[in-house]
Amino acid sequence: MHRYKLTLEYDGTRYVGWQTQPNGVSIQAIVSRALQALLGTEVEVRAASRTDAGVHALGQVAAFTTSRELPLKAYRMGLNRFLPHDIAVIGVQEMPLDFDPRRWAKGKRYRYRISNRSVRSPLKRFTHWELFLPLDMAAMREAAPVLLGHHDFAAFRASNCQASTTDRELRKLELTGAAGGDIEIVVEGTAFLRHMVRNIAGSLVEVGKGRQPVAWLSQVLVSRDRALAGPTAPGHGLVLEEVFYA
Amino acid sequence: MHRYKLTLEYDGTRYVGWQTQPNGVSIQAIVSRALQALLGTEVEVRAASRTDAGVHALGQVAAFTTSRELPLKAYRMGLNRFLPHDIAVIGVQEMPLDFDPRRWAKGKRYRYRISNRSVRSPLKRFTHWELFLPLDMAAMREAAPVLLGHHDFAAFRASNCQASTTDRELRKLELTGAAGGDIEIVVEGTAFLRHMVRNIAGSLVEVGKGRQPVAWLSQVLVSRDRALAGPTAPGHGLVLEEVFYA
Repeated sequence: MHRYKLTLEYDGTRYVGWQTQPNGVSIQAIVSRALQALLGTEVEVRAASRTDAGVHALGQVAAFTTSRELPLKAYRMGLNRFLPHDIAVIGVQEMPLDFDPRRWAKGKRYRYRISNRSVRSPLKRFTHWELFLPLDMAAMREAAPVLLGHHDFAAFRASNCQASTTDRELRKLELTGAAGGDIEIVVEGTAFLRHMVRNIAGSLVEVGKGRQPVAWLSQVLVSRDRALAGPTAPGHGLVLEEVFYA
Repeated sequence: MHRYKLTLEYDGTRYVGWQTQPNGVSIQAIVSRALQALLGTEVEVRAASRTDAGVHALGQVAAFTTSRELPLKAYRMGLNRFLPHDIAVIGVQEMPLDFDPRRWAKGKRYRYRISNRSVRSPLKRFTHWELFLPLDMAAMREAAPVLLGHHDFAAFRASNCQASTTDRELRKLELTGAAGGDIEIVVEGTAFLRHMVRNIAGSLVEVGKGRQPVAWLSQVLVSRDRALAGPTAPGHGLVLEEVFYA
């Protein structure tokens, strides 16, 4: 048997997310179907991150096991022939048979994008959260660092998050850009709870809108109470950029 | 009477281009319809650039005349309510009654984008020309400057271009990025012939692919023969960024 690691880029606009669900088409289902078309047998494929509906990926990582050994390039080109235009395999690697894309991951980097000008942007409508009033970037930058490091992020989990522990480590939380233009929030950590990046983005925006003071973000973190955090930022502003294994 | 200048952003993916045509939906038709919905009368709207099918705009300029005077903000918000998600009015200004968005323009800036990695990119499929073999950027950079300045650009016009003279001035021709990644060609000039930017991009790519030597580009220019230039680069890689009036 052989186990392969796929690096995937996708435009999440049309999908219910990575995970197969009853209410629409998932990226997992489309990738499974392409593997089946290429290999002639049903293949289970699992990913490092369960990206939500509308969330994009520049470097999602998935893995599958098969008895068929093909050259790596044949996997990449063969799968891309069966995948639609909004999903592509951008890399293939053979891995040990016990490779688990989620458990083996040492970290992930996400980027959350906001278009902050006063009028909507046709060219950014599928990739940016559009917020028309200028955000207070200084306040957001002042608030953000409290989330860095090891914390219990229970306040930033989704209500249906099933993780057994809510302790996580945030290694990077960077805000770039300027109010009135494009703003990007880059988040890097060892692992993430469900909706964690979107809830962090949504909470930073509460501070940026002046609805909450800078000190509020640390109160939310300490409370471990989901009800206190800001609203979940929309999925389409989020990109999974990279999953690290070293 | 009042004459208004509209600055428009649009995603050209769904359209046959700016100009109304028998074979599909144009941006001009959609903007006219929105003006009619807002003003209650038929209104002629003309633009600075006839962007082709698939071409995008961050700052197309169009103008219309009406007897109705509304606050500029009411025009912007009112029109955006009637426009689809892929077209937006991002600015409105009142102008002299004889304002002609094309004739009054002192210059335009376009950007042509290429994704040059070896595998297709789902997130760039509507905005970049995908070329999978690494281009020779050094050769392209060496060839480009010959086009700068005043020239007869007849070799780079479209076969159905109706301009009476083919003398144009290119003020800027910049190549950024690196082979194997994203490459951008920024072109700025006083005015352009039909398909001129796409033919310049297509010809530079001929040099980048090694199909033509560096010196070939100046031979094409001097020949004034459309048949000698490279193929027209696809429309979806092009963005009209700005029209200058000062």
